[in-house]
Amino acid sequence: MIHFKEIAKIMGALLLLIALLMLPAVIYSYYYGEDPWPLLISMGITGFVGLILFISFSKQDQNIRKREGYLIVALSWTFMALFGMLPFLLSHQIPTFQDAFFETLSGLTTTGATILTDIEVMPKGLLFWRSMTQWIGGLGIIVLTVAIFPLLGIGGIELFVAESPGPTSDKVHPRISETAKRLWYVYVGLTLSATILYWIGGMTFFDAINHGLTTLATGGFSTKNASMAHYDSAFIQYVAILFMFLAGTNFTVIYFGLLGKFRRVFQSDEFKTYTLAVLAITVIVFYPIAANGGSYELAFRKSLFQVVSLVTTTGYVTDDYTQYGQGLTFIFFMLLFIGGSAGSTAGGIKFVRHLTFIKNSWLEFKRLIHPRAVVPLMINGDRVTGRIITHIMNFLLIYLLTFVLGALVLSLMGYDLPTSLGAVATCLGNVGPAIGDVGPVDNFAFFSPAAKVFLAFIMLLGRLELFTILVLFTPFFWRAN
Amino acid sequence: MIHFKEIAKIMGALLLLIALLMLPAVIYSYYYGEDPWPLLISMGITGFVGLILFISFSKQDQNIRKREGYLIVALSWTFMALFGMLPFLLSHQIPTFQDAFFETLSGLTTTGATILTDIEVMPKGLLFWRSMTQWIGGLGIIVLTVAIFPLLGIGGIELFVAESPGPTSDKVHPRISETAKRLWYVYVGLTLSATILYWIGGMTFFDAINHGLTTLATGGFSTKNASMAHYDSAFIQYVAILFMFLAGTNFTVIYFGLLGKFRRVFQSDEFKTYTLAVLAITVIVFYPIAANGGSYELAFRKSLFQVVSLVTTTGYVTDDYTQYGQGLTFIFFMLLFIGGSAGSTAGGIKFVRHLTFIKNSWLEFKRLIHPRAVVPLMINGDRVTGRIITHIMNFLLIYLLTFVLGALVLSLMGYDLPTSLGAVATCLGNVGPAIGDVGPVDNFAFFSPAAKVFLAFIMLLGRLELFTILVLFTPFFWRAN
Repeated sequence: MIHFKEIAKIMGALLLLIALLMLPAVIYSYYYGEDPWPLLISMGITGFVGLILFISFSKQDQNIRKREGYLIVALSWTFMALFGMLPFLLSHQIPTFQDAFFETLSGLTTTGATILTDIEVMPKGLLFWRSMTQWIGGLGIIVLTVAIFPLLGIGGIELFVAESPGPTSDKVHPRISETAKRLWYVYVGLTLSATILYWIGGMTFFDAINHGLTTLATGGFSTKNASMAHYDSAFIQYVAILFMFLAGTNFTVIYFGLLGKFRRVFQSDEFKTYTLAVLAITVIVFYPIAANGGSYELAFRKSLFQVVSLVTTTGYVTDDYTQYGQGLTFIFFMLLFIGGSAGSTAGGIKFVRHLTFIKNSWLEFKRLIHPRAVVPLMINGDRVTGRIITHIMNFLLIYLLTFVLGALVLSLMGYDLPTSLGAVATCLGNVGPAIGDVGPVDNFAFFSPAAKVFLAFIMLLGRLELFTILVLFTPFFWRAN
Repeated sequence: MIHFKEIAKIMGALLLLIALLMLPAVIYSYYYGEDPWPLLISMGITGFVGLILFISFSKQDQNIRKREGYLIVALSWTFMALFGMLPFLLSHQIPTFQDAFFETLSGLTTTGATILTDIEVMPKGLLFWRSMTQWIGGLGIIVLTVAIFPLLGIGGIELFVAESPGPTSDKVHPRISETAKRLWYVYVGLTLSATILYWIGGMTFFDAINHGLTTLATGGFSTKNASMAHYDSAFIQYVAILFMFLAGTNFTVIYFGLLGKFRRVFQSDEFKTYTLAVLAITVIVFYPIAANGGSYELAFRKSLFQVVSLVTTTGYVTDDYTQYGQGLTFIFFMLLFIGGSAGSTAGGIKFVRHLTFIKNSWLEFKRLIHPRAVVPLMINGDRVTGRIITHIMNFLLIYLLTFVLGALVLSLMGYDLPTSLGAVATCLGNVGPAIGDVGPVDNFAFFSPAAKVFLAFIMLLGRLELFTILVLFTPFFWRAN
């Protein structure tokens, strides 16, 4: 028996939290003299449903086991999307279900793909709520990373999130809350720092805080139609680069960095790979971008910005990277499959999984030549067990299969190959922009209602590391006791 | 120290064999009153170099170890390509190095992609040699599958090739020669049967034997510009379907089938999956193809033919499968990644590897829910070890990475996305036709010289199961002792 009442109680608490988090948007709405009712009513409905659920089941004190864990994760994002879309629907700013659902899930999954064709005409209160959905999504991922995924054994990365409590559930609680507190401080601290620097750089405070929220969430929603290209300021764009990079870094690594424990920082193979990869790819794309004119500094900034934005799955753009020919477009398309670091707010595959695959491939050759030798795989100074290697490679293959089957679905709906591949890759990786008809200067408005709902589901699959959602479709899940 | 002299002796023997196998083409050349000199001179050069090498090193009797094994395999195909292209070059029918090299490797790897824009103007002797390169390639793969790959531990499929001797090198010889004899009988017997049936169906004997050779090799070179669409005969096309299907089946399974041991046949999970997959995909593509007019029989035949041709990596066509819209094109594109059965002449990934991935994915979900349970993976009634599972999933990922990086290279050369993806997928999978500008009614003539040589290398990588070639680029190989 699944403890549904306990789950209902938790959903109630979650909705109360969401209602509370709508408050700043309501305040902005008043502040800018806009109609606050859509937000107020949404807040009321969300809070009311949350309260009913919470009170009805408040006396529940059933155990939360793995199975409840999976359901709680999957249902949390679904509930947040269904209630989070209310402000868009009630204000008629996004009048259809599929559009509002897509936009809200794009926020909560920190994807950043948008169906809006003119962002700047949107009321400020709603824009703030839109940015807030991303920040909430980023916060949710930190909670998942620290407290939930390690218990569920999802995706094989639990061992690489430094300081994560590991799968033994007995003695995790003190360490979980300690780690959660640290990462929360990092998240809030970095969001405030980015906001202040954007503000100093010349953004209005409203734009600064919106971009602060969506940068740290690696979300990429902007309050401007031209995204970060709107700001003709090298300072603002470098600030964005820095904070996107930090948001794609394992937050525990940042924490140790802030404490001055640099040895811990450089012990992380993932952090080193991440840093080197960003630099290497920037160097690769720099030449063709520089060859198109402009100063070297501008070409460097364009290159670094686009690379960091895609690698960290943020999705801001300052340049149409599809204008430099087939080859460069292909490179940027490949970046949709990288996905920042484990233990950050970034989506997608993540460096530590790529590292596991690449290191293990190398070792496979060694094992071929020396079949009797024991050739262990080491990451961050620890030996990775065969069990975890298998699980991670299986994750990679399921990820790619999901991508291909997803693109097939869009193809069957009649979209061309680059658009189908691009849209699914960017949604699955929670990035935002892609190639084809969903390039960096396009949006997702033209997709059919069915395609939008489908792509929203793909975002959710990617954000929750596939297994969390897919396991619900297996008989093992429902049969287990 | 690598025993190069022993390798040279073997290359000598191989070239003598190739010279001998050029003889039928010379005879056809005389028979049709064509200029026999290009073939005769090629035969003379190949035989002479082979004789020199063989005699010079005939007193060598060094051990062949794993490292010599890898080099022998890689060099065999290279030597066969370099001498096998001589007839095309000397006759000036394919006057440039890149074209002749591409066409010959496309034959020897049983790919079937062609740079010829008008096949039917080619002299018959050369056409026969072109078909023969595929049959030689198919024969080579049988030898590799039975005798070499199991010793080298390549690709993780050694355990699934029924009756294969396994990686213990002590007591393999009697079983190797026994198995090799069986598979050789199957290969020759099926080639003759296909030839006779094609002849009965109305082909000239010359066309019948050419198509017999290239069907059983899952090669797909045709003597007609329109490939099998040239023959307006349902009989001929069904014969092709039957023999392509058999050529993509594990030859040991066919052997047991011919002996009436059907229990052994149905014990093979790979054979069952292969059969069901071919039928299921045919059903899926039937409806849209039937909706385009013609009788149901014709639509069924078109569907089955194209599916069997791509799944077995043969590459004959009777229909332009890219004319039915984005969705169906995508499905046919995906078929380039299947690749017949292990222990057949088919190229590509192979069903047993897909089966390992899919079954293991399913079990990963079970393992998530029951983390303490031992959940073994069973294929063909045997338990697959974690070591082999890891190796196979690593193979799949390296295969996909090779595909993506290969497509990137073509993109950087300026080819568009569908063409780049299609050309690399079809060359890596040794299929032949693809999508984009290399669709079923196109050819590879338009590629630049560099692209042709690159694609020829991709064919070789795919044909030799990646590891055989890639291991030569690792330090472990050259450092080992």
